Amino acid sequence: MFTEISIRTGVRTELVDITPQIQEAVSRSDVRDGLCHLFVPHTTAGITMNENWDPAVRQDVVAALNALVPASPSYRHTEGNSPAHIKATLTGFSVACPVRGGKLALGTWQGIYLAEWDGPRQRHIYLTIHEIAG
Amino acid sequence: MFTEISIRTGVRTELVDITPQIQEAVSRSDVRDGLCHLFVPHTTAGITMNENWDPAVRQDVVAALNALVPASPSYRHTEGNSPAHIKATLTGFSVACPVRGGKLALGTWQGIYLAEWDGPRQRHIYLTIHEIAG
Amino acid sequence: MFTEISIRTGVRTELVDITPQIQEAVSRSDVRDGLCHLFVPHTTAGITMNENWDPAVRQDVVAALNALVPASPSYRHTEGNSPAHIKATLTGFSVACPVRGGKLALGTWQGIYLAEWDGPRQRHIYLTIHEIAG
Repeated sequence: MFTEISIRTGVRTELVDITPQIQEAVSRSDVRDGLCHLFVPHTTAGITMNENWDPAVRQDVVAALNALVPASPSYRHTEGNSPAHIKATLTGFSVACPVRGGKLALGTWQGIYLAEWDGPRQRHIYLTIHEIAG
Repeated sequence: MFTEISIRTGVRTELVDITPQIQEAVSRSDVRDGLCHLFVPHTTAGITMNENWDPAVRQDVVAALNALVPASPSYRHTEGNSPAHIKATLTGFSVACPVRGGKLALGTWQGIYLAEWDGPRQRHIYLTIHEIAG
Repeated sequence: MFTEISIRTGVRTELVDITPQIQEAVSRSDVRDGLCHLFVPHTTAGITMNENWDPAVRQDVVAALNALVPASPSYRHTEGNSPAHIKATLTGFSVACPVRGGKLALGTWQGIYLAEWDGPRQRHIYLTIHEIAG
């Protein structure tokens, strides 16, 4: 099953919790046991997992990546968003989560996050969900 | 086929070779040609590939990530392990390896490593292994 | 369907556009709707997506990763290419792209890149392409 979700990000850089929307798509898919592949069709946003409990964790992840890849006059790309392209490569563009009993088989403290590095923007995630024999 | 492996890590930060356990699960699965998806259900550990020959490579990878993301009093998360959450995002949470003839189709020098960033702990990897027509 | 592509990289560090070769393999596969899994069987090269329009973006990504992981006398691995192993872990070794209507479902500005960190070398990418019911 192929579907996509849309997210309106709110600020320049943030991790946006997309776990509920992904789980809702899995539920609609009728896949019981299989895989849910997530793909980001952008070049200044990525996808990652991290802690879903203390929001300070997401803030620390965002602040650390922003510090690792600061703005600089030495970039050749003239649109001013090279740090966003670099952080997208560091966070990655695809992830696959197991599905068991119709639910994402995430860890207890794990959520799925769109990593926005050049917002606010309208973003999309492509989902490919398929059954696998047990 | 769905299964999982458990690993007891031994120190705070390390790359633990899990290639033999993954290959053993592939062998048990009866999948001849397909994919082996690996998923880390944690938020302070990741998964990566790297050289399986000289153990100094793993030590250098661990030391470099530790240097990139040092401890700091400015993190907002008060448990003290924000660097582990950040390094988990940098190393990533899922990888898929081809399976050919019942074996992981890895490169000659390639092993699969759990990236422990907040050990020692008991860790798990979820495996989803499926056949694909040739 | 299993296949592989070969790439001769030209310099020490670069992002090489492999999108046309991947799309050509997808077209040969007769898969209409499914997934194309890409796997790098090396330990000093990775795979990533990024902008396919302005080549300066790729140069900025390469320069930023090279700056994040500089050469240093403190590495233990004596072959001198520890930075390449570290950057390979940061860029990652596998990616899965959706296939729709026989084409890679990439974003408008998105290309697929081999991330060469220790070239020039002959490199390979393993492709696993499979159909998924819609």
